[in-house]
Amino acid sequence: MSSEKGYEDLAFAKLDTDRESRTGFPEVVFCEGKPDEYLVQIYEKLLQTQGRVLGTRASAHQYEIVKEKIPGVQYDPVSRILKAGSSEMADFGGKAGDRYQSAPYVAICTGGTADIPVAEEAAETALFFGTRIVKIYDVGVSGIHRLLSQREVLQEACAVICVAGMEGALASVVGGLVRNPVIAVPTSVGYGASLGGISALLTMINSCANGITVTNIDNGYGAGYVASQIFRLASGGQNK
Amino acid sequence: MSSEKGYEDLAFAKLDTDRESRTGFPEVVFCEGKPDEYLVQIYEKLLQTQGRVLGTRASAHQYEIVKEKIPGVQYDPVSRILKAGSSEMADFGGKAGDRYQSAPYVAICTGGTADIPVAEEAAETALFFGTRIVKIYDVGVSGIHRLLSQREVLQEACAVICVAGMEGALASVVGGLVRNPVIAVPTSVGYGASLGGISALLTMINSCANGITVTNIDNGYGAGYVASQIFRLASGGQNK
Amino acid sequence: MSSEKGYEDLAFAKLDTDRESRTGFPEVVFCEGKPDEYLVQIYEKLLQTQGRVLGTRASAHQYEIVKEKIPGVQYDPVSRILKAGSSEMADFGGKAGDRYQSAPYVAICTGGTADIPVAEEAAETALFFGTRIVKIYDVGVSGIHRLLSQREVLQEACAVICVAGMEGALASVVGGLVRNPVIAVPTSVGYGASLGGISALLTMINSCANGITVTNIDNGYGAGYVASQIFRLASGGQNK
Amino acid sequence: MSSEKGYEDLAFAKLDTDRESRTGFPEVVFCEGKPDEYLVQIYEKLLQTQGRVLGTRASAHQYEIVKEKIPGVQYDPVSRILKAGSSEMADFGGKAGDRYQSAPYVAICTGGTADIPVAEEAAETALFFGTRIVKIYDVGVSGIHRLLSQREVLQEACAVICVAGMEGALASVVGGLVRNPVIAVPTSVGYGASLGGISALLTMINSCANGITVTNIDNGYGAGYVASQIFRLASGGQNK
Amino acid sequence: MSSEKGYEDLAFAKLDTDRESRTGFPEVVFCEGKPDEYLVQIYEKLLQTQGRVLGTRASAHQYEIVKEKIPGVQYDPVSRILKAGSSEMADFGGKAGDRYQSAPYVAICTGGTADIPVAEEAAETALFFGTRIVKIYDVGVSGIHRLLSQREVLQEACAVICVAGMEGALASVVGGLVRNPVIAVPTSVGYGASLGGISALLTMINSCANGITVTNIDNGYGAGYVASQIFRLASGGQNK
Amino acid sequence: MSSEKGYEDLAFAKLDTDRESRTGFPEVVFCEGKPDEYLVQIYEKLLQTQGRVLGTRASAHQYEIVKEKIPGVQYDPVSRILKAGSSEMADFGGKAGDRYQSAPYVAICTGGTADIPVAEEAAETALFFGTRIVKIYDVGVSGIHRLLSQREVLQEACAVICVAGMEGALASVVGGLVRNPVIAVPTSVGYGASLGGISALLTMINSCANGITVTNIDNGYGAGYVASQIFRLASGGQNK
Amino acid sequence: MSSEKGYEDLAFAKLDTDRESRTGFPEVVFCEGKPDEYLVQIYEKLLQTQGRVLGTRASAHQYEIVKEKIPGVQYDPVSRILKAGSSEMADFGGKAGDRYQSAPYVAICTGGTADIPVAEEAAETALFFGTRIVKIYDVGVSGIHRLLSQREVLQEACAVICVAGMEGALASVVGGLVRNPVIAVPTSVGYGASLGGISALLTMINSCANGITVTNIDNGYGAGYVASQIFRLASGGQNK
Amino acid sequence: MSSEKGYEDLAFAKLDTDRESRTGFPEVVFCEGKPDEYLVQIYEKLLQTQGRVLGTRASAHQYEIVKEKIPGVQYDPVSRILKAGSSEMADFGGKAGDRYQSAPYVAICTGGTADIPVAEEAAETALFFGTRIVKIYDVGVSGIHRLLSQREVLQEACAVICVAGMEGALASVVGGLVRNPVIAVPTSVGYGASLGGISALLTMINSCANGITVTNIDNGYGAGYVASQIFRLASGGQNK
Repeated sequence: MSSEKGYEDLAFAKLDTDRESRTGFPEVVFCEGKPDEYLVQIYEKLLQTQGRVLGTRASAHQYEIVKEKIPGVQYDPVSRILKAGSSEMADFGGKAGDRYQSAPYVAICTGGTADIPVAEEAAETALFFGTRIVKIYDVGVSGIHRLLSQREVLQEACAVICVAGMEGALASVVGGLVRNPVIAVPTSVGYGASLGGISALLTMINSCANGITVTNIDNGYGAGYVASQIFRLASGGQNK
Repeated sequence: MSSEKGYEDLAFAKLDTDRESRTGFPEVVFCEGKPDEYLVQIYEKLLQTQGRVLGTRASAHQYEIVKEKIPGVQYDPVSRILKAGSSEMADFGGKAGDRYQSAPYVAICTGGTADIPVAEEAAETALFFGTRIVKIYDVGVSGIHRLLSQREVLQEACAVICVAGMEGALASVVGGLVRNPVIAVPTSVGYGASLGGISALLTMINSCANGITVTNIDNGYGAGYVASQIFRLASGGQNK
Repeated sequence: MSSEKGYEDLAFAKLDTDRESRTGFPEVVFCEGKPDEYLVQIYEKLLQTQGRVLGTRASAHQYEIVKEKIPGVQYDPVSRILKAGSSEMADFGGKAGDRYQSAPYVAICTGGTADIPVAEEAAETALFFGTRIVKIYDVGVSGIHRLLSQREVLQEACAVICVAGMEGALASVVGGLVRNPVIAVPTSVGYGASLGGISALLTMINSCANGITVTNIDNGYGAGYVASQIFRLASGGQNK
Repeated sequence: MSSEKGYEDLAFAKLDTDRESRTGFPEVVFCEGKPDEYLVQIYEKLLQTQGRVLGTRASAHQYEIVKEKIPGVQYDPVSRILKAGSSEMADFGGKAGDRYQSAPYVAICTGGTADIPVAEEAAETALFFGTRIVKIYDVGVSGIHRLLSQREVLQEACAVICVAGMEGALASVVGGLVRNPVIAVPTSVGYGASLGGISALLTMINSCANGITVTNIDNGYGAGYVASQIFRLASGGQNK
Repeated sequence: MSSEKGYEDLAFAKLDTDRESRTGFPEVVFCEGKPDEYLVQIYEKLLQTQGRVLGTRASAHQYEIVKEKIPGVQYDPVSRILKAGSSEMADFGGKAGDRYQSAPYVAICTGGTADIPVAEEAAETALFFGTRIVKIYDVGVSGIHRLLSQREVLQEACAVICVAGMEGALASVVGGLVRNPVIAVPTSVGYGASLGGISALLTMINSCANGITVTNIDNGYGAGYVASQIFRLASGGQNK
Repeated sequence: MSSEKGYEDLAFAKLDTDRESRTGFPEVVFCEGKPDEYLVQIYEKLLQTQGRVLGTRASAHQYEIVKEKIPGVQYDPVSRILKAGSSEMADFGGKAGDRYQSAPYVAICTGGTADIPVAEEAAETALFFGTRIVKIYDVGVSGIHRLLSQREVLQEACAVICVAGMEGALASVVGGLVRNPVIAVPTSVGYGASLGGISALLTMINSCANGITVTNIDNGYGAGYVASQIFRLASGGQNK
Repeated sequence: MSSEKGYEDLAFAKLDTDRESRTGFPEVVFCEGKPDEYLVQIYEKLLQTQGRVLGTRASAHQYEIVKEKIPGVQYDPVSRILKAGSSEMADFGGKAGDRYQSAPYVAICTGGTADIPVAEEAAETALFFGTRIVKIYDVGVSGIHRLLSQREVLQEACAVICVAGMEGALASVVGGLVRNPVIAVPTSVGYGASLGGISALLTMINSCANGITVTNIDNGYGAGYVASQIFRLASGGQNK
Repeated sequence: MSSEKGYEDLAFAKLDTDRESRTGFPEVVFCEGKPDEYLVQIYEKLLQTQGRVLGTRASAHQYEIVKEKIPGVQYDPVSRILKAGSSEMADFGGKAGDRYQSAPYVAICTGGTADIPVAEEAAETALFFGTRIVKIYDVGVSGIHRLLSQREVLQEACAVICVAGMEGALASVVGGLVRNPVIAVPTSVGYGASLGGISALLTMINSCANGITVTNIDNGYGAGYVASQIFRLASGGQNK
């Protein structure tokens, strides 16, 4: 459905309509700061060419103005995800001990409760791309027994997303426990010398544990994307 | 073969003998700065408990002193890898158009020739862990046709390692072309405002492309490790 | 028309009335933060001595208060340019394949749509100074085919302005494609480790491509100025 | 024995002879970079006024030149401590399960083997000041079972010194396990984005665990000093 | 009263109900940024399991919404402490020359008046944990006689908390005067090159005086916690 | 009039009443952020003990609340100086060629008009302390003839205050022209890589010219203070 | 002479043989750190395909080993340029008042003598590319009369390269004097807070003057390249 | 004796022969890194035009090569000052209690013994310019009684130079004690988070005390220069 040159040329944007055939994932919209009229046009055009649209960092206001043109659009105020036309798998709800071991899944952890919005951005992104997930929130290292009680479910995941601010030590401990890749997401949670998340980013980049790679600060979307790439490979699916 | 408590207690170190059963990969030795007598003891003990040893950032001198006790140890001066007891797959040599598409493989790119030692550390690590690799060196973005001529082999890889210094733009361009995860490795190659690799690290962390996560500066080993985790998942292998 | 000493001494400012004869360009006003009464006086005095005035980073409020004294003043809310008494060439609208090759022109690119306000500041500045321009927006490296489709128009430009935030890789790719100078403008677009544009600035300063020099973050005006200097030289014009 | 004004005025230094009566600890010498002739004079004068001298960061050469004047001086090349006239308690050797619980003691941990020189500086300092210590080395978080196996001995310590480089996560995990103060010592061990220890320092300063305070990078001496202050208070001793 | 696994699993948080038995101090709530409904649930649950709750960085609004469910909750707008169910010792009011020397106490100093809110957070925390305190405010080094007039009360304290912004030199001078640990708290008070408290933090971390360790910027709570740990040890109390 | 111990102990502050006899200048109030009731008490107490009060960074609101108690207080909204009880010399108005050469004076320059508030803080401070001043505003280096036209008045000053933001090059040029000390004041004027004034501060600290020392960013008060110290020495006055 | 795919594939490098037809300039070699055997192969291959080779940052040793294979290679130890097969114009020697105004030329300035090696790298690069140059060395702003005495020759240049370390103020003053682009090159000359050239880079990026763009620290080559691009445009030559 | 244009044009340098008549001080040579042949020419030319030469940061080797041409040149290995043809006042030797109060003098303090080389550079510079000095070394704030014992001599100085590394708190304490300007010189003495002197620089720039301005790290020369300017003003001398 994409144009011959592989993009749709709006006056203000060149939508990458070739994206899905090239990478296996459709183009996604970073909503923050986009003018209302641009945003609506982009949603309409992408829905038409891709059949579904995922937007991140959307405001309640943006939800309202998109909904006027696309009534079925859905908005989640915690993750700030605004999506249209999607079909997705159910969330497995973070309840350990289920039958989730019979199929690949991605585990999403947070150090504290303040990291949850970033984790939810990762979770919603992964679900949008058809990825099975398990949520394990508030298991920071200052009470390590909380994390260790989830050891089994972490070890069996095909990828683990670790979302943490302040000193960001969670990723190192998880990295030492599991078999598969850990995607570390530093958050801007903290104050003083946390430097808006730079401290957590440095912690994660310097981790002594193996199998850890890092995204930008607060980039839940990016972590959900990579985890979905790995999930597809682990599922023996269409992405290889 | 590990002790009951899961580690071997030398006077100066607690070797993690439980590592392989827990994570699927044996403990690896960071050689740089280790005193000679410590290093030899560690190699001997790990060879005994794990059957093979991989060491990174080894010097020629360290090769000599380990060889006295472990005659079959092998040293590669470019990657500075020092390994003992390993068996590994052959390198596929970076020649595109082969039969490599019939099985998963990891592609390893560099921006320039100065990035090769870091890429070789990644390559040797991946091979040690039984991962198929293809090397694509010196394809930096200042002559983008060199990279684009390798497009097909990049797109089919189950993971791509991008090793680049200076401004580190390679990862973003590759990220826009491929289906599977890109592991970006900033290097300390550069001068002036490259800040010993911090500039390349920031470039990669802020990438506008999807599917990119980042390791520490010059951390070829870490990239080879994560790529091997993904390779095993893509191979439907024992690691899930 | 300038005073003997080369400047006009207002109580709060010394307007550089000698500027145009010395540099070939009239003095320009940085509006942001200037008190209302100062700003109006400066516009009136410069209009009187130079015949035209260009102001950057003007607010809608400043437009209103200047318009009261200078009714013909024009304001563009995207670029935030506030100009009076100017005459300028038309914008060639970014449509490739025209006759623009028959005369020098400057190409202005952006990585994304969020970079457009900075690019428009550059564009408006260049037009004010009589420079022919072509706009090529939203051609960031994550979908490199969009940029490559504009290759011919970039290569023929006498200068290319590359406006990009986040990781700022656009300048390096363009630098590898073209014959003439690339003026790289990092923007503050991004979040987390983009550090308000410092990351993009470092990328551009460390570029492995040739022919790239860099302005301050968000300094569209500065890029438009230098591009106009080069345009005049390329036109064989009055500036040499 | 101090002079009336509370210091001894050498040509190049004013030795703080009032220190011990004021703070309970004698003046200590930072040897690194001191010219030979200054160092010898300082050791001689302090030995005379204080009865014992502790020097940190001494080189083998400095040991030689001091030994010529003070034959009984003792040097430890790992901690780089050079001491004269001291009497000290024995090291309890890091063997858990002993009778050490019957009296206060300080536990000294390291993340890895490369952190041992800094830990030894702390240990030697504490011993010089009459503090009981237990050493727990190489218990970094990438193999958390090694640390957890030492849980009891950590919890019973009157203070714990955590010495760690790279991402420095050890202090946070220990802080969550113990009752008494944790003194976190970042080390310069690491590479790339470890920034010579700044990354570990930021991790420790931002710790989400309670009871953690931080010293300068590689400042084993400072940690040993504070631990000794706490040990004296816990011993009900002369320092309160 | 804690659950078998040592934490209480709310949907959004895992409250560390094992904390008090493990560390001797109950779990504390960092209120800033917590959604209203989460905060109320956390206060209710912790009051039920611990018998008392301390919250830091609470807003007046949060006080109001918690008070609806827990009428006896107390709020101090200077320290921003919100506590419920506590019983505490009296503040000794910073008046030197009293009988406070007959029992251990913690001294809390500030460099200036702008540092008082952080000092009050430390003071309220210490009092909540049953620690005797003395306040010595506005004794910055630019008028050193103010500090020296308090010399005796500082020297006798079992720990001194030094709260200072700008250049943060207070801790070094106090460190040179006293026998027991100095806990240095940099504050974000200052402007320009104070870098939001980073300058004061660096000063304190680099102190030439002995016995100084450092907390995060503005972390009065952390200082009050560590001082309480030391106070208990000095009191020969239950914490050893 | 000061108390025996050299300070006045308010509940929240220790006013340094010994300051004037010790340093030759009375205590000054940094108003920003002081609670209303504290500020009023401080002004009243200082007016009573010193006979005059200078406050910096005062808001219009603070002027109002102080005026209720001290009707004669004077406020200047540009410099944000709030003073009571002062008597001062007249401003010489920056008009070169007068008789100011017959007596010492301080010259105050700015790079641009946006730097004027900081310069006015310096000017008002100097006048309060009885210092003769000459103002030379908007003489930044991009139009060097403006500065050179003031060369004589700069060279004859007993001190020159250079206030500049952005790249802060003014101080270096002035330093090369004059005989007496240059006090360089970086300002936070600028954007992007000006880093809130850090760039200008670094420029001034690294100046290749002689006779330049630097204050904190935007610290006009500090510059006015030092210039007044030098003015008194040059006047052969009471301060030596 | 380039291969069909536009590059020559050596085992360790992909030489961009398409470069000259694409950009108008041949590929250049960054010699620093290249292994001997790689360097020789690259020189031989480029000389064969391009007819001439320019290398930067070459050592005396590298000159020796290349000379063995290419006897006519020329080395300049100040600029560290190593070139083969080139033909170039004469240097005009920095003597003002000549007939240089009859044709375009580039002026190259330095702030001090320590900046000369970087300036010479720029000069040699420009000459290699056939650019007319004039050298104006040691005209830093601390003695502004030296710079002003060269005013005419600066103003008539088609581009000015300003090479300066320490505070790097030279570019701003020159930018205010001239009609055509100023290419600012920060150098690592300086100490302390010069931060290896970062301070000069920030100065230049924040310049209040117009027409200034910036290269990486010590990047004389990059400046010479851009100046040559501009020179060709100004010459009405083959580069448009 | 200077040339008509105010400078002497050597091939590689433009010596500022107009400097002394313009600023009252002759041109000074920064020796570090100057090639031998340049250095000798500069010394010879300046000695001829100025009658005396001061050089800073000279090596023993440079002393040797200059001595061959100028036999009377004098070198001090601590301060690294190399001077020729000078006549200067005697050093007053730091002995307090003399008659130095009868005439202006500059006091030079250090925090520790490691700061002495920088202090000596300041002292030698001041003496070369005819300034009376008193040295007060090793009076850092960790033993404040040492500094307070020198209170009188500090208060009477016409300027105080404070040289300190590590946390650099000395300047703030001195600033609170004295009447006249304090010139603060941060040094690179320290380790870890001292950041090569940046920490001390930030401390001094943010000082809460009045009358403090700051030079570059280790810039003893700059401090000696400014102190000499102030000394001349205080002496009622030729410099006003």
